[in-house]
Amino acid sequence: MRKIKVAVVGATGMAGQQFLAALAGHPYIEITTLAASARSAGKTYAQAITSEAGASQWFCAEPLAKEYAAMTVQDAATFNAASVDLVFAAVESDAARELEPRFAQTTPVVSTASAYRYEEDVPIFIPGVNMEHAELLATQQKNRGWKGYITPVPNCTTMGMAMTLKPLHEAFGVRQVVMTSLQACSGAGRSPGVIGMDIIDNVIPYIPKEEEKVQKETQKILGKLQGGRIVPAAFPVSATCTRVPVLDGHTEAVYASLERPASLDEVAKVMREFGREFLALGLPSAPAHLIDVTNDPFRPQPRRDRENEGGMVTTVGRLRVDPALANGVKYVLVSHNTKMGAAKGAILVAEYLAQRGLV
Amino acid sequence: MRKIKVAVVGATGMAGQQFLAALAGHPYIEITTLAASARSAGKTYAQAITSEAGASQWFCAEPLAKEYAAMTVQDAATFNAASVDLVFAAVESDAARELEPRFAQTTPVVSTASAYRYEEDVPIFIPGVNMEHAELLATQQKNRGWKGYITPVPNCTTMGMAMTLKPLHEAFGVRQVVMTSLQACSGAGRSPGVIGMDIIDNVIPYIPKEEEKVQKETQKILGKLQGGRIVPAAFPVSATCTRVPVLDGHTEAVYASLERPASLDEVAKVMREFGREFLALGLPSAPAHLIDVTNDPFRPQPRRDRENEGGMVTTVGRLRVDPALANGVKYVLVSHNTKMGAAKGAILVAEYLAQRGLV
Amino acid sequence: MRKIKVAVVGATGMAGQQFLAALAGHPYIEITTLAASARSAGKTYAQAITSEAGASQWFCAEPLAKEYAAMTVQDAATFNAASVDLVFAAVESDAARELEPRFAQTTPVVSTASAYRYEEDVPIFIPGVNMEHAELLATQQKNRGWKGYITPVPNCTTMGMAMTLKPLHEAFGVRQVVMTSLQACSGAGRSPGVIGMDIIDNVIPYIPKEEEKVQKETQKILGKLQGGRIVPAAFPVSATCTRVPVLDGHTEAVYASLERPASLDEVAKVMREFGREFLALGLPSAPAHLIDVTNDPFRPQPRRDRENEGGMVTTVGRLRVDPALANGVKYVLVSHNTKMGAAKGAILVAEYLAQRGLV
Amino acid sequence: MRKIKVAVVGATGMAGQQFLAALAGHPYIEITTLAASARSAGKTYAQAITSEAGASQWFCAEPLAKEYAAMTVQDAATFNAASVDLVFAAVESDAARELEPRFAQTTPVVSTASAYRYEEDVPIFIPGVNMEHAELLATQQKNRGWKGYITPVPNCTTMGMAMTLKPLHEAFGVRQVVMTSLQACSGAGRSPGVIGMDIIDNVIPYIPKEEEKVQKETQKILGKLQGGRIVPAAFPVSATCTRVPVLDGHTEAVYASLERPASLDEVAKVMREFGREFLALGLPSAPAHLIDVTNDPFRPQPRRDRENEGGMVTTVGRLRVDPALANGVKYVLVSHNTKMGAAKGAILVAEYLAQRGLV
Repeated sequence: MRKIKVAVVGATGMAGQQFLAALAGHPYIEITTLAASARSAGKTYAQAITSEAGASQWFCAEPLAKEYAAMTVQDAATFNAASVDLVFAAVESDAARELEPRFAQTTPVVSTASAYRYEEDVPIFIPGVNMEHAELLATQQKNRGWKGYITPVPNCTTMGMAMTLKPLHEAFGVRQVVMTSLQACSGAGRSPGVIGMDIIDNVIPYIPKEEEKVQKETQKILGKLQGGRIVPAAFPVSATCTRVPVLDGHTEAVYASLERPASLDEVAKVMREFGREFLALGLPSAPAHLIDVTNDPFRPQPRRDRENEGGMVTTVGRLRVDPALANGVKYVLVSHNTKMGAAKGAILVAEYLAQRGLV
Repeated sequence: MRKIKVAVVGATGMAGQQFLAALAGHPYIEITTLAASARSAGKTYAQAITSEAGASQWFCAEPLAKEYAAMTVQDAATFNAASVDLVFAAVESDAARELEPRFAQTTPVVSTASAYRYEEDVPIFIPGVNMEHAELLATQQKNRGWKGYITPVPNCTTMGMAMTLKPLHEAFGVRQVVMTSLQACSGAGRSPGVIGMDIIDNVIPYIPKEEEKVQKETQKILGKLQGGRIVPAAFPVSATCTRVPVLDGHTEAVYASLERPASLDEVAKVMREFGREFLALGLPSAPAHLIDVTNDPFRPQPRRDRENEGGMVTTVGRLRVDPALANGVKYVLVSHNTKMGAAKGAILVAEYLAQRGLV
Repeated sequence: MRKIKVAVVGATGMAGQQFLAALAGHPYIEITTLAASARSAGKTYAQAITSEAGASQWFCAEPLAKEYAAMTVQDAATFNAASVDLVFAAVESDAARELEPRFAQTTPVVSTASAYRYEEDVPIFIPGVNMEHAELLATQQKNRGWKGYITPVPNCTTMGMAMTLKPLHEAFGVRQVVMTSLQACSGAGRSPGVIGMDIIDNVIPYIPKEEEKVQKETQKILGKLQGGRIVPAAFPVSATCTRVPVLDGHTEAVYASLERPASLDEVAKVMREFGREFLALGLPSAPAHLIDVTNDPFRPQPRRDRENEGGMVTTVGRLRVDPALANGVKYVLVSHNTKMGAAKGAILVAEYLAQRGLV
Repeated sequence: MRKIKVAVVGATGMAGQQFLAALAGHPYIEITTLAASARSAGKTYAQAITSEAGASQWFCAEPLAKEYAAMTVQDAATFNAASVDLVFAAVESDAARELEPRFAQTTPVVSTASAYRYEEDVPIFIPGVNMEHAELLATQQKNRGWKGYITPVPNCTTMGMAMTLKPLHEAFGVRQVVMTSLQACSGAGRSPGVIGMDIIDNVIPYIPKEEEKVQKETQKILGKLQGGRIVPAAFPVSATCTRVPVLDGHTEAVYASLERPASLDEVAKVMREFGREFLALGLPSAPAHLIDVTNDPFRPQPRRDRENEGGMVTTVGRLRVDPALANGVKYVLVSHNTKMGAAKGAILVAEYLAQRGLV
């Protein structure tokens, strides 16, 4: 495949770093630009992520690739998006609102920010779940007069739930969903994110705006494209989002009422088989399965299962009949909030769009 | 009030220690016997909880009272229950099954073990919630030919949920309940309980038998005494019980569908006012409120709220309309699993039974 | 005793809150002024510590006293220190450098900030350790033309070590000290302090400036007042200061070479007996012992021992002969960094100064 | 190279699992036997590590290789050691004392157990540190009439310290050592190891027998082979070993007095260059460096540095002059207690012995 030249904008932040960690050695995506705020511009990337006191601010477990360390960081505010085939935007929501439309005038933007997630002509992709929403990109380009487009990935908490509800919705219809999340600290970033004194020996039962995002995004992602727009899925989603003393990996207890009765075996089967067509594309960042269903009653656990299949699989366990909901099933899932739920998920979306000729 | 002489059986274990911590300085309950397994019998209590290596095995935050330290531990297997007015049993379920009926032949037994919780003629009390079930004790005595009786407190996870559902059930009727618990490690005890390597940076999504207990106990506790037996509450309870890296204090995300619509203000009001009659008894271990409802959106948190009102109040927060359930409300609660949820709750039950002339 | 009117400056911060928690119900110290930055000025204290989102920013385990909640916060920059008998300053070092001399023109200042710790005419008190340095306050007043004075308490890490070295130095002479600290997160405050993602499942082996402070302060505190100035103790102190996933309570492994040989029994004895004269003053915030020496080989532990005697005692354990140092002894200590090591320690210093007629 | 057939004895335990994780895909070491206690014998390995409740007891982060999962576990008590070229023994000390001599009659044994570490004719190898002690193996064989031999790896806490002291001792002479360890929970195993309730928000300041092991093993490993026996290094080692809430990776604060003065640059240089000759052998499990010296003042950190170079490098940071010790230097190190400090270290020792013709 021809090389795809990309810029990572917001490259020094945590989400940006995860793009670098994930793209090192990629078969055909080549980072040609690293961009960040004016403060970092002009420095090498290695300098830009070193504090005055000499402390490394590289926070990924994977080592920083030497070729990226030596690159000079550009100013995100002035960077010429036309110089690349694709922009991975990993900036805060406010910056995204301003920067992404500028980039999109010339260039496709795959973003981890929420700024444009809720606009009518903007699809939110989860790999293998709603790729047919890609048709909306042409509408977006027409509406806005852009050569490129913006497509954000969902909130990291939406990802695992929507991924697992999709096969249920297809096969049995989802009528109602209740979900409690036990979210990792990395989801909150480092500015300052979750303070150590707040989370040691504790649970924080509220993450501002998270529950609304989860409901809205899930309905949109599982919605149908009709007449050039997405008709959201009709089922209500009631979420309680909490933060727990876990580094990476969101755990979610999901309770779903189905339109049509389904045995646990049938549920496990549609989950296990989900995404075959998408996986058959052989995209380089794709896992072997989108959903893994375990029979071990003590799994999934965030620390033990978050890295399954490179952090790209959603692991489901504790599949049980729900006694309180009509045609109810319940389960626990773990997905990696900073891999499939952020940068690596965005890269897989980009790979798909490229294969489809949209990059 | 006359002094009530009690034995704490299982006194060296974690639950037993909590009885000692809670009874030190009690106005009218006096520990006259400490009993434990044959291994501890004959030693002073201080010796019995000191390891061979000289390490203290006293695990309560409260210091061990000197008068208890000096008492000689009796053998639970041979201890004469008739020598006390009441037995607090804090032993494992298997031991409880064997020991408690023997004690109950002569003496009331308030127990933290689950052994007899599910028997028809055995009430499970939560202070202020179902004290009218006390009538069942006479039935139990008649059935079994005992002068005493057995009454266990519920599972620590049942406690907070049943406490908060009770005013909802009374006022609006509860139709369906979904609940996810984030439980503290102390609930698992120390033999070995939760292993450090399993819980650091992790969540364990399964606690054997816990979900079944929660459903069954909640229905029984909120059931009605009719014709000499308890008719369980009809609403189904769907629980997912998980363990998180928290020392004490269970957090529960509760979602309830009500029979009749209720505003959030009405829900908060019935919770805040719940238990006035019970609290008016002025029992020494009772808190000022059974339920506290906070408006702080980031509360309740287990570390910050577990010790509220001596660990005897259930703190509710994040009260919201539930979009997925009919007449739905949802909230988060924190209750102290080893205080109201175990020994101190059992003591409060005993205080009530004594006041009512049943001890 | 007559009431002493005090201001707590920096009252909304963590250290300031600890003053409020510790002074509630004090027999003769009465807070008449709460002062903080201009942002908080004019609000009630309760408002000042509530976030826009309605979240309580009160972080002490002890509840906030109602009388403080209702007080109107003054602006620290304009507050008239002459209106109180004493100022407790709990501000950051930069603010302290500016504000404290202004307060000291009229009023004694007991401070938790490091700004003036290293000035020649400024004593750093540890209760019971070096109260004879109080003579230096007159020198300070003369030097600077102040009616009041500034006296900071030491760094929280210095406290436990200097406290335990003092009886050794008096009895046997200290020649060399090596110390590794395992410090609690609360020592770093909340702005943002230690980030959750940095400390879960981790140790941070560096706390900027801490090791230098510990060496310098220990030598000064254990120094002798000669000719109107403090001659620092001569023994070198080599420290490695680390941060561990602990909320409160600093643990320190201390290795000391003594001038004269001492048996472990002698060492334990001088520690246990240390401070009798000071404790005989009966100051209200004083513990029953300055140092507790435990024989339990697994103690002291920060979580289990930090609250001993109200967080005001230093608990020493694992007393052993040191095989590597001449006349070497080694031990582990735990002291409460935000109680004796900060606000409550400062209050005890103030009580002493008041008793001595210096307030 | 010819294939070396090995048995892993104690294969179901944590240390045994680490051998399996490390040997999967090894170029020339082939596991032909998995042995464990009678309870596991006859089951497939996959069955043997699955609990009755269906829970996987495989605790390594690396997945279990399919070929091992399918192997039938043999009974360690009856397994014929002569059927393999080498035994990796990963059993508890009591079992080791009994089993290892039986295996050694025919076959070399590289062990993680401490049972034989302190016998005169038994060398304790740290890769690259004291391989010349291999001569002692012939003495051992002669003494005991064995065709094989026993060689244990050191305690996981000894490893990092002895590794870093070796270049200092060679270049400058070590005179005195003080060391405080902050050890990971995995070092205590799972039976039950460190209980969650004991380590959350806590430090345990005592690990039975650990400090003695560290002193004795360090002196032995850094000793000289003279006249057919090891003359231990003369310098005393004073250790305080503590447990902290960290999963893997031991952190050690080391303070060393040197015989001859050395600049920090010189110290860094001898550490960085240490082991070149050993590394030049190109053994498959060897890292690129034995010691990495970082200039980042906030490193090494156990979570961030334990996996450096496959968990086989010791990372040193915070190199400073020690003000308390003569010719003193101090530093902090992190080494992986279950990789270089256990199974992977043992494998590297075996690779060396094989290359030298001793397997």
